[in-house]
This record gives sequence, C-alpha cells and structure tokens, in this order.
Amino acid sequence: MPGFKDQACIVGIGETAYSRNSGKTELGLMLEASLNAIADAGLKPHDIDGVIPPRLYATAEHFAANLGIEDLRYAVTVCMGGASPVAALQSAALAVSSGVADYVLMAVGFNQASSKVIRRGVDPIDTAGAIPLAPALTTLAEYYVPFGSSTPVQWYSWIATRYKHLYNVPDEAAGAVSVACRRHAQHNEKAYMRGRPITMENYLDSRMINYPFRLLDCCLETDGGTAVVVTTPERARDLKHRPVYIMGACEGHPYPADDIPSRPDLFKIGLSYAAPRAFRMAEVGPADMDFIEVYDCFTYIVLLQLEALGLCQRGEAKDFVPGGRIELGGEMPLNTHGGLLSEAHTSGMNHIAEAVRQLRGEAGERQVRNAELGLVTGWGDFGDGALAILRR
Amino acid sequence: MPGFKDQACIVGIGETAYSRNSGKTELGLMLEASLNAIADAGLKPHDIDGVIPPRLYATAEHFAANLGIEDLRYAVTVCMGGASPVAALQSAALAVSSGVADYVLMAVGFNQASSKVIRRGVDPIDTAGAIPLAPALTTLAEYYVPFGSSTPVQWYSWIATRYKHLYNVPDEAAGAVSVACRRHAQHNEKAYMRGRPITMENYLDSRMINYPFRLLDCCLETDGGTAVVVTTPERARDLKHRPVYIMGACEGHPYPADDIPSRPDLFKIGLSYAAPRAFRMAEVGPADMDFIEVYDCFTYIVLLQLEALGLCQRGEAKDFVPGGRIELGGEMPLNTHGGLLSEAHTSGMNHIAEAVRQLRGEAGERQVRNAELGLVTGWGDFGDGALAILRR
Repeated sequence: MPGFKDQACIVGIGETAYSRNSGKTELGLMLEASLNAIADAGLKPHDIDGVIPPRLYATAEHFAANLGIEDLRYAVTVCMGGASPVAALQSAALAVSSGVADYVLMAVGFNQASSKVIRRGVDPIDTAGAIPLAPALTTLAEYYVPFGSSTPVQWYSWIATRYKHLYNVPDEAAGAVSVACRRHAQHNEKAYMRGRPITMENYLDSRMINYPFRLLDCCLETDGGTAVVVTTPERARDLKHRPVYIMGACEGHPYPADDIPSRPDLFKIGLSYAAPRAFRMAEVGPADMDFIEVYDCFTYIVLLQLEALGLCQRGEAKDFVPGGRIELGGEMPLNTHGGLLSEAHTSGMNHIAEAVRQLRGEAGERQVRNAELGLVTGWGDFGDGALAILRR
Repeated sequence: MPGFKDQACIVGIGETAYSRNSGKTELGLMLEASLNAIADAGLKPHDIDGVIPPRLYATAEHFAANLGIEDLRYAVTVCMGGASPVAALQSAALAVSSGVADYVLMAVGFNQASSKVIRRGVDPIDTAGAIPLAPALTTLAEYYVPFGSSTPVQWYSWIATRYKHLYNVPDEAAGAVSVACRRHAQHNEKAYMRGRPITMENYLDSRMINYPFRLLDCCLETDGGTAVVVTTPERARDLKHRPVYIMGACEGHPYPADDIPSRPDLFKIGLSYAAPRAFRMAEVGPADMDFIEVYDCFTYIVLLQLEALGLCQRGEAKDFVPGGRIELGGEMPLNTHGGLLSEAHTSGMNHIAEAVRQLRGEAGERQVRNAELGLVTGWGDFGDGALAILRR
C-alpha cells in the first residue's frame, strides 16, 4: 500500500487572534501562531527542523532565523493557494516518516482585511512580466481581466452558475452552508462572527455580489495566523497532547489547472482526483467521518466538494445539506469552528487546527461527541484541491 | 537508517541548447528540456504525475497543462535559489519512494542572458512590499542595497575576502577552478565556452569585477533549460536507460540563512550541514567519489564547498586544487561539463544532468573512466546548500 498511513501525526496547533485590523505584519502573525503551536506541542522553537512556509510573505529561512533553528533540514513551499495547508500535510508526513526531518512546522499568516499587499499580488498590472506564483496570475492577466473577471467571486461564479443551472440547486442549499457555519461560530470564542448569528432569511436577503454569490455566500477577509506541527508517532509519545494521526493526505489538480472555462467538466475539481486516493490510503470512507472541515471560500464550492468527497452523488448536495445534517448535533457536522465564512480566513490552516481540537476532545461547547475520525479539505487557485483524513 | 537510500533513481535527462539569446520564453525552454528528459526516459508526457517547478517563471499547473498531465499527484516548489535542483532531488525521492507519485519531473529554464526579468526579481525598488520569494529579497532591500551591495558578486565577496585573508588563499587556487572548468568545456559540444580555452595567465589577467572576483571567477549568464525525471528502481527496469540511483540527498541552511554578515562563522555554509547527513544516508565518503559536480557561481564558492564536503580540511582547498587533481584525468575531476563557469547556467540542474551522463558512461570524450559514484552540490541565495550522492 503506497503512502504514509499513520506514520505521521499532528502534535501542535497555534493561532493568533482573528481580527480585521491586527496592526501586525504577516510574518509577525505567522511567527506568533508558530510559537503557540510549538508550545502547544511541548517543544522549543529550535526543535523544529522542517518548515513549510506559505507561498506569500515569508520563506523557510525567515522562520529559521526568527525561531533560532540552527539546523534546518527540510523546506519546501506548496503553491496551491487555499489548498496549500492541507496539501502541505502530505509533504510534512513524507518528511517525518522518512526521517528527513523530526518536527515540521507549517504556518500561514494573512492580513487580508487590513493590508493591500495581497491584492497587489494579483494585480494584473503587476503580472505582465512578473513571477507566476500561481497559474491564476498569468491566465488572469492574459485572458480573464480583459473580459472584466479579476477576482475569485467572479471566476468561481462560472462554475457555480453552471452547477446551479444544471442541477436546479436552490438558493437555500447554499444558504444551509452559510447558516451552519455561522451557527457554529457562535460556539467559538475565536470566531470573528461570534455574536452575529444569521437566519436563512438573513441569507436570502443579503445583497448579491456576483451571481449566484450573495454577501453571505462569501468568506471573510481577516487578519490572523495559524500554525501546525507534525512529527512521528514515536516522537509524539513524549509530547504534551494526544497525537492526531494523518491516515491519508493527497492533493489533486483539475485539468487543465491553469484555466477554468477550458475544462471539459467544470465539476471535476482537484478534490475529485485527491479524494479517492486519500480514502484508499486511509482505508476508510467518507461516511465514516464524525465531522468534516471543508474549505469554504464560497458556499457553492462547499457543495461541489461534498460531491467530490463522495458524501453524495453529483448534483445531490442540495439534498444532503438541509435539515440540520451538516450542523452540530447532525449526522455530519461541517466546519465546526465556523469556517472561512464565519471564523476567519487563514487559508484553511484554521480548518486543520479545528479538526485537531475536535479529535483531541478540546472543542468545548462545540465538541462533536466521541469524535474519532474527521477530514479537512483545501481548495485553491482555480480549483486545486487537497484532502487529509485524520484520527485521534 | 532514516532516508531513502537507493529507493529512487534518475531515469531521464533533457536539455535545450545553451546560448545567450534563445529567442524563447523561460517556460518554453523548461518545456523543451522537459520533453527531452521525458523522451530520454522512454516515457510519454502524460506519464508524469509529479512536478517540482523552479521558483521562477512557471508553476506545476503550467507544466501539467502544457504536458497534458491529467492527474497531477504531487507538486512542491523548492525555494533555495541555486541549491533548489539538488534539494529537489530529496523531495522527488520522497515522493516516488512513498508511492505518492510514480514519475517526478524537475525542470529549470532561464533567460539570464537575454532577459531582464530575472534582474527585476531582485530589484530593490520592487521588493519593498513585495513577496519575499527568497530571504535575499527582504534583507537586500533593507540592509544591503542601502550600503551599495545588490548583487551576488558583492555579497559573496564578503565571504571570499575573509576566506582569502584568513587562509592566505592565492589567486591561483581560484584560477585552478576556472581553468579546469574551461578545459572541460572544450570536450563538451553543448558548452557555451567551447572553443574559447583559457590559461592561468588569462585568468590572472582578467579584469577585477569585485574583489576578489575577477571576470573569470564569475559564472556565465546564459539562456537555456535543463530537466530531470525521477522514479523508483522497480519502474526504472522498464525504461530506456540504466538508472542512476540516488544514494543520498540532503539540504542545509546556514544560520542565520537570511543574512550573511551576522553569521558567527562565515564558512559554515548550508553544505556544511547537508554533507555529513547525505554521506551518512549514502554510507559512502567524499573520497569514494569518481567525480564531483560542484555549484560554481564563483570559483571561491567552489573552494569553500570542497572543504564543506570533507574532501580537505578548512583552509586547505588551496592545496587540493592545484596540479591537475580536479581536472579530467586527475584524482577528483570537477565539473566535467564545464560547470556554470563554462558550460551554462541553469541553476545547477545541468550539473545533475552531467552526473547522470557520466554514470551512464555517455560523456564521450570527457568520460571519467569506470565512473561508479559521483556527487552534485547546490548553492543558493545567501549560502543555502544541497548535496546529492549518485551511483550507477
């Protein structure tokens, strides 16, 4: 059996406050979250010998210099946008299970709310001769922007509109995702949207941003950082918390990944490739999960992923999400922390942290009872995807 | 024993012509080299399911779209400047030995000679709020450029000047590296400097660029692309060439990696950390090598690496290089293709291609007789390093 089932585990998670005006740099947020994750694991910063920095704002060397890592043995970057944190679990697992590194740190820091830097990064004016950090940048500059499409809410609307039309997806199906995430955020003291509950009526009344996406279909833009530490089960024995095992972790890329409209099948997303492989590695199925943390940049993107995961057939997510099934207390609680829609946006690294918290039994009033198995997905750029299956 | 000794091998190498005015894009050069490497392996483009693109000019998705890779399973980027290709062998070996991917493609394409884009990438004016692709960029903008130091020939001169002073390194020691590489290029039809041999007198007469670096201490800036394909020994059996096994591959980072002058020991470079680990994994020593392909952005950087490899003691490279020892026919032939100094600059990916050619016994008039073991080093940014030990 190829892969690294149960040969690596998550032993530390760390977060900053999630806000809309941190007053801190992105690197500062990453380091703050990293120190929290390292302390959570019961390690010292210099114990870290592998780093997977995000694509933006910092390199492995910045982490090493700031954390005092004298002998850095492993450093790669995963360039899959919002799918990067989950895909990075694959690389972290490879590094520790092979002995190339002992403790791998993954961190994300964003000032999406208070900074303009992230926007400059996708400014088509800057991209003409620029470094193509993402396939988005060149395709954007050359094909999308000239026709007026320059942001995710526009690109993904092509997919969502087609999906809605083809399968008669009612607004309320997307609304069920939005409402569930917001409800869960009320039980999470870190959630930016705590204290601001919504109803389905609020969802349906929210203003249209770009059809079919209403305001309440769209994730937050926040400031914040999240970090995770990965090691081997043997090393985990001496650490502070019960480890959370990585049963499977895979990435997938739609074809072609660098352009949306030229795909013969708009709903064959990165996760459609990653999910069967990850479940095979983990030797479990989607229905075995006690909860699911699904990348929720937009509600309709969650619906697509439920189908790609195999939780329901294509076009049937609309029948899966109503009736409280995806809410706490339901059969398959989704985004128990509130997700990108209602907790914060740290590129989905916060989804991994929440899954670990649930599997440790430390999720407080939002704890899924007897949670033993959970999954985390990532979605990035033009539909890159990743899936990690975790167990306590 | 941690690691992946002999669990992965190089089965394909591909190059473009090396020139100073390709008239092609960087992506085009990478793809041309990639197609050559894939054909050299006896594979089809769509067989590739893992890609390690360079930090610049292209993402994995660009490769996937252009090569027709429908199910891309593995994509990471190694951000270590010129150490990236050799460090990427570590990631490629992890990916194939674990079964995460079957065939991993690594490629580099550069238009250093004909394009200004690479220079724009390190333009301090662009870096103020820019994405720190390399630790160099932020340190450069904030600490070096204000004092007049903005290019590698300046930063590395700090190290080389101290080294030269402390160990009384004569000009002729650096010259021996320059002359050896140029001599070897005369036996390589792809080498940009073929037909332009030099003597030690030519070296000593060449104009000073930035002390202690003369013109003939500095590598070429060329246009070109080089690519490599990695798979498992099992899969290699069905392919076209005898595989070249990766016995060990490790990366190392000096401390702190993001700034040169603040290091307590300027000569403790990335390779100083990587080399002992790589030799341990490979279970061989430096003296066992039949040839060495050493990253040669500047001659003095080669001398430092000979010491970090353990081929000689610190300060003694000056006594190691004279008398033809590092030339073809000598005890330890260095950069048998001509290196960055005299073949071309594809970020050291061409060093890997040459090592494979030597170990296949396909190096023609520059073949090292009975070459069974060889090593390749990488050097990048402010002294990041990597080492791969290969066998036939």
